This record gives sequence, C-alpha cells and structure tokens, in this order.
Amino acid sequence: MTERIREFLRDRRAKGLDVEPCLVVDLEVVRDNFMHFAKALPDSRVFYAIKANPAPEVLSLLASLGSCFDCASVQEIQMALAAGATPDRISFGNTIKKERDIARAYELGIRLFSVDCTPEVEKVARAAPGSKVFCRILYDCAGAEWPLSRKFGCDPEMAVDVLDNAKRLGLEAYGISFHVGSQQRKVKAWDRALAMAAQVFRDCAERGISLSMVNMGGGFPTKYLKEVPPVVQYGRSIFRALRKHFGNQIPETIIEPGRGMVGNAGVIETEVVLISKKSDEDDVRWVYLDIGKFGGLAETMDESIRYAIKSRHDGAEMTPCVLAGPTCDSADVLYEKMPYPLPVTLEIGDKLLIEGTGAYTSTYSSVAFNGFPPLATYHI
Amino acid sequence: MTERIREFLRDRRAKGLDVEPCLVVDLEVVRDNFMHFAKALPDSRVFYAIKANPAPEVLSLLASLGSCFDCASVQEIQMALAAGATPDRISFGNTIKKERDIARAYELGIRLFSVDCTPEVEKVARAAPGSKVFCRILYDCAGAEWPLSRKFGCDPEMAVDVLDNAKRLGLEAYGISFHVGSQQRKVKAWDRALAMAAQVFRDCAERGISLSMVNMGGGFPTKYLKEVPPVVQYGRSIFRALRKHFGNQIPETIIEPGRGMVGNAGVIETEVVLISKKSDEDDVRWVYLDIGKFGGLAETMDESIRYAIKSRHDGAEMTPCVLAGPTCDSADVLYEKMPYPLPVTLEIGDKLLIEGTGAYTSTYSSVAFNGFPPLATYHI
Repeated sequence: MTERIREFLRDRRAKGLDVEPCLVVDLEVVRDNFMHFAKALPDSRVFYAIKANPAPEVLSLLASLGSCFDCASVQEIQMALAAGATPDRISFGNTIKKERDIARAYELGIRLFSVDCTPEVEKVARAAPGSKVFCRILYDCAGAEWPLSRKFGCDPEMAVDVLDNAKRLGLEAYGISFHVGSQQRKVKAWDRALAMAAQVFRDCAERGISLSMVNMGGGFPTKYLKEVPPVVQYGRSIFRALRKHFGNQIPETIIEPGRGMVGNAGVIETEVVLISKKSDEDDVRWVYLDIGKFGGLAETMDESIRYAIKSRHDGAEMTPCVLAGPTCDSADVLYEKMPYPLPVTLEIGDKLLIEGTGAYTSTYSSVAFNGFPPLATYHI
Repeated sequence: MTERIREFLRDRRAKGLDVEPCLVVDLEVVRDNFMHFAKALPDSRVFYAIKANPAPEVLSLLASLGSCFDCASVQEIQMALAAGATPDRISFGNTIKKERDIARAYELGIRLFSVDCTPEVEKVARAAPGSKVFCRILYDCAGAEWPLSRKFGCDPEMAVDVLDNAKRLGLEAYGISFHVGSQQRKVKAWDRALAMAAQVFRDCAERGISLSMVNMGGGFPTKYLKEVPPVVQYGRSIFRALRKHFGNQIPETIIEPGRGMVGNAGVIETEVVLISKKSDEDDVRWVYLDIGKFGGLAETMDESIRYAIKSRHDGAEMTPCVLAGPTCDSADVLYEKMPYPLPVTLEIGDKLLIEGTGAYTSTYSSVAFNGFPPLATYHI
C-alpha cells in the first residue's frame, strides 16, 4: 500500500465512483521493482512476464526502462510492440504455440522461441526458419508456494535430443530454460536447477551443440502475509550458483519476473456485502465480498495465495472468518479450510484493501460470470 | 451434438473462420429441454438460472416459451427484462446482495428475493419494502457430482427465525429454497430436502407464519460421459416426495434448472495445438488444446466435470492422455489425475468437439488471460 494509492482511492470515493471493486496499481513501485532486479542481477536480461499484468501503462513504463518481454501469445507480442519494445527484446515464451501463431510472430520480427519437444521444434523450423530456440526442462519446484505441474518442460536427457533436432532443422540451439515454481521463497532454489542446466550444456557440447543462454525463469516472490527475502539475496545466491556450476564460462542469462515485478504494486479495494452465520452455534462468521474467484482472485484456488487484507478496524480484536465471493457459485469461496482472521467490528458496507494484488488478477477476471463486470483497473 | 451444429461448423470452416475455439449452442435443444421440464413438473414454475448461459438468444427463447428467470445480479435482471420477461417472472436469487442492488432491483419491479440470514432480510426490508422473501436452507448434497459448499443457506432451525424476522419487518415470508447439488444424478435426492422443507413449514406455522412456496433449486444434470436419468423420472420422484411430505397441502413450487436447460445444447470446437511426451519412457501423452480452464472450461476444476470429447478418429485405438490448455499457467490442466483416453492417431491441428458445454462455459471465460480472447459463441 502506498500513499499514492491511498490518495487515489480517497479521490475516487469523493467523486462517488466507489461502487465496484477495483485494482489500483502504483507504477512507481513497478519502476522500483525493475531497478531492484536490474541491480541484483546486473548480468541478466529482464524479460517481464506480460501475463502477470499486461496493462499498457505497465508495459510502456518497463519498455522505457529497457526491459525485455516474455510473451505467451501473439496478442501479448503485439502489446509489447505497441508499448515500444523492439522485436529483439521479445521472446515467444509459451511452449504451446499454433504453427500459424509462430508464423505471425516471425512476421512481426520475433526470433526467440521456447520449445519443450521435437514436434514444437518442427513447427518453429517451418514457420520461423533460422530462429533461436531454448528448451524448457522439467524441475520439481521444492519450496515454492505454488509448485508447478509437469505441464511445461521435458526431462533433461530429452532436452539434448530436442536441441539436436533444432540444430539439424536449421534453428539456432540457443539454450535452456527452467522454472523454480511461482512465489519461490527459497533463495537457493536456483542452485539445483542451474546444476541441471549445466549438465545439459555439457551433454550438448559432447554432441557438438554449443549452447549460449540459460533462461532462469520467474518465481521471484511478492510479499503476501509472510515476509519474503529481498531480490538482492536472490541475485547473490543465483550468481554463486552460476559460478559453481558453470565455472568461468558463465552463459548469457535471462530472468522472467512477473509476480515479483508487479505483485506488490497493486491493491484491490472491495466491499463487504454480507456478514452472517449458518446457525446460532457457529463459531465462524461468513464474510462475503464483492470480488471473488471469478472477479480476479483466481489465485486463491486451493487457498494457495493468502493475501494480506486491511480494513479501518485494524488493531481491533480478530475473529476467524470464511471469506467468499459474490457469485451464486458454491466454489467461489476464497478461504475456508483455513479461516481468515478479520476484525470482530467489521460491518456490512465496510471497504477492505487486499494487498499484493498487482499480479494475476485483472486478466484472470471472468468476462461476465453471474452478470458481474470484469475487475476495473487503474494504473497510476 | 446435433446436425444443425455440425452444419454450422462446416459452414464456418468453409468461410475460413475456424481459427479460434468456439461454442455453438443449438436453440432447438434448449426449446426441447424447456418443454421436458414443463411436462415433467407441470405444477412447478421454471425459473431458468441465467448464470448457466446468459446469451440474449437463450433468454429471448425462454421468455417467449413462458419461462421465469433466476437472477444472480442486477445485470442479469436487466438481461431478463431485455429478453421480454416481466418483473413478476424474475427472482433475485442470490443470497448475497448489496443493499443498493436490492434497491435497483426493486425500482425495476422485482418483488421476489432470496435470503439466508437476518442481516440480508434487513437489507431487503429497507430497500424493497413489502417484497416476498424465501429463505435458503443448507442441505448436504449427497450424490451430486458437484456437491455444494456451505456457502449458501442456513440451518433449518435458523430459517424459522429468519422468516419470522422478515414478517416482523413487513416482508412476506414466502417460502423455503434448497439446492440438492449440481449435476445431481440421483432422482430421489429431493426427497430428504423436501422433508426438511416440510418441517420448516410446520415450525413456521407454529409461529404463526404461513409459508406458500418451495423453491426446489437446480441440480438437474446434463449428459457428460455417463448417462443421466430423463427429466420425467425426476418429475415423478419429486411429485411423490411432495405428496409424502406435504400430504394434500402441496405448496406452490419453483425449479431453477441451469445446466439441465442448456448443457447438452452446446458444443465447443477446439484445436489440438501440441502432442508431446515429457520423456522417452513416458506412457502418457500430453495433448494441449487451444481452450483450457481460463478460456471457458473452468468446471474441469479438480477434474469435477468430465466432458465427452469427439474427433474424426473416433473408433481408432485409444491411449491415455493428459489434457491441458494453451496458457503459460501450470494450473491450466484439464485432466491429469485421471488421464483422458484419446485416439492414438490424433494429430496436431486436429479439431476436437467437446460436448455438453452449453452451460457454465462462455461467461466463465477470462477477459484476456495470456492475451487470449474470450470464448467466441454462436447461438443458432
């Protein structure tokens, strides 16, 4: 929460515009975050993961600061270009691409593509001849608050074949990527992944393939309820791991922060719609908000991300609450297995501030589920 | 799947418009479904649950057939009115409403509101004086494929107090509602819930409150992979239960089909973007589609709803596949714990038809996650 956001919300309320939930993102915080990454990892290029928050204001700011962009779709590539990034600062980082989308990206000047299997390499070779490809390897993500599934990446042994095939099909076998898991709170998490990457570099070298780059992915955390280490500690730990596993032949490196770049820059203002109990004997109160899983808080899925929630009653006695969204969908419950403590004095109509919501909120919002409009957003 | 949908998709392809996934809904099927409900439960009023599919074409058709509408928000009320429903055919069926939304509904002529606690009754009494309210009671939903959480409803004992308070505040204590769980495949599921409702009727009568109506909710299934009983069997079973628990004083009844009204009317056409393995030893193939959890298939959450999926290879040998969506989100996996059998001859670029997708797809779709546009829809 920043003074700029506080002031914006005060003004909005004064204008009588506070009828719907909204996300407010402070661009000054995004700027600071970029600077911290650039300083903590001075030898890595920053590819901002657009999917975390693709607002034009965020993209323009980051483009002006010299950021590169990790894109999940042709639409995101077009947004990055519109924000002022040149094609050489853009990667098509999704391992799952339609061949015609690869061709469109190639037409737009993109020459850097992510792959994790030979069929995808074949598509890139046909639709984007001569481009650079990096192969994503599987990694088990221990220590991440949101460990990833096996959806992306292949076994490291297979990666060597994939890159070999790329080379034989006229592509540049450029490097390796991995992801240590979202909201990774262990600064040492990159060590083992970099050991794996170094092994793939050696295995490739034996096959006559000289790799140049390691894409170290995202996973940099933002502060929710628990404290997280500062970026500078990640930078130091990653540098040590690079030195350890690559010796004096440290490759070119990329990082792809998304959550870590915008998460703490955003605050959602929401209203308490109802407070009730299910029976006279219940200890737990149900608190219903005007935003839920389908209005932007999809990351509360399985109660994975636990946001910090503030109100005008902070400091009052707390009581455990089940927190739920406003839709007629019984799955639209944010925290139930582990109830959320909220002030006993909380009332219907009170505003709550949900902190750390700058990432993975606005675009997750459903089109119109239950007739509710998508989350309103302001980037200031 | 109907011949009309098949023909529409053929035409669409012929016009070169088949580049994105789309949902096609056959309105003739919706019409048939309405007729089946009307015939199976001739003494119940049908309140279509708009949230299942709020397309104007669906609402206009149902309005012209005489359906009433269950609305989750003021926006849905406005859609029902725009489709030609008069206010007396509309209920504001969400138990979680802002007081100003109740006031807006009241201005629009709505006089029927759902509640499940006294604070909500107080809002309705202030913002919609003299209106009818029905109180939702908790029910444990045994036998439903998608059992509901405790989000909606209160203990039956509390419901008596809630309705008593409604009466004292000048509202009409109109009745009781419950929900037996979504995709309820047991035709007898309503029996125990109606026993509970009858008990609340008696308890209210003792307090001098004469209730008139039982809202028996939705839960009527649509066919996915498993067969479901026809609506006529539900009708017979429900009538027997009403007779058993209410004797010769059967109250006015309402049903709120959503999924059962539109589910089997829709088919999603999607494209296979990638087929791969994670290692040479893997038995399971990964099949990636151009639609996933965030493009409309949110009900695959926890692999709850298992859709029937057809392709041009049907009849070929099948092999277990993990099925995933196109986004760079590792949670965007449809079926993994229980892999989905798909033809071994399936190829990248093949079209798949996902059946039974007329409900809870189009409006669940995210605004623009990963830059992908929301699900395109056609109602024919």
